[in-house]
Amino acid sequence: MNNCPLCAKDLENVIVDNQHARILFVVENAYPILRVVAKKHVKEMTDLEVDERNALMQMVFACEVVLRQFLKADKINLASLGNVVPHLHWHIIARFENDAHFPDSIWAKPRREPLMPKAAKVDRAALQCALYKLLND
Amino acid sequence: MNNCPLCAKDLENVIVDNQHARILFVVENAYPILRVVAKKHVKEMTDLEVDERNALMQMVFACEVVLRQFLKADKINLASLGNVVPHLHWHIIARFENDAHFPDSIWAKPRREPLMPKAAKVDRAALQCALYKLLND
Repeated sequence: MNNCPLCAKDLENVIVDNQHARILFVVENAYPILRVVAKKHVKEMTDLEVDERNALMQMVFACEVVLRQFLKADKINLASLGNVVPHLHWHIIARFENDAHFPDSIWAKPRREPLMPKAAKVDRAALQCALYKLLND
Repeated sequence: MNNCPLCAKDLENVIVDNQHARILFVVENAYPILRVVAKKHVKEMTDLEVDERNALMQMVFACEVVLRQFLKADKINLASLGNVVPHLHWHIIARFENDAHFPDSIWAKPRREPLMPKAAKVDRAALQCALYKLLND
């Protein structure tokens, strides 16, 4: 449908794909980020039916669990903004006290050099497997 | 408990208070923001039990509904960061295409002068009433 980049069939870095959403794992500006991209082309959470939005949140929380587990993050940041691409998606971001922006958001002016921390060493296959397991529990 | 500012009994701008959370309505840097502050002093969503986190999200989505309804926002931004105050809370932010940061996050460098838009004119009592109604449905 349309030319929305998040509707694209060939989205990169997809590690989970189910009826509700696709989950992408990316490392952006040294930040390990899981991104939950809704299958439906809607703008806001409350454009979804209640059961759909709950299902999406279960995926967001599964992402939080695996980032905590795999990266021992100091904090998890959850955000659904979509101002640039108004197709519903969530960012689940692992934060560390010595990362470039801490304690600010990753969209603020950086305070220090980016970390290339544990993110680069994450076993993507293991993370993918852990996510699928959580989502099927 | 402790000296956490979000555990404080006398939190300002509270418009809803139930067993799960308090909801605050504030206008910060011209942004109309509803803030859902968990009652429990925990850091992450996945520190809550599943039913507690679902209840909290229902409050977040009720906030989204009323901001859409009362402010006709171009976009709603949802975020749970908590890097500065690690007590679980959500920001539900009404965004407008001509606001100071759009389409960036409100934590980015501003692109233009802040708007003092519809926020200042919001009927807080009506918004509060609409929220309570949604939460009791």
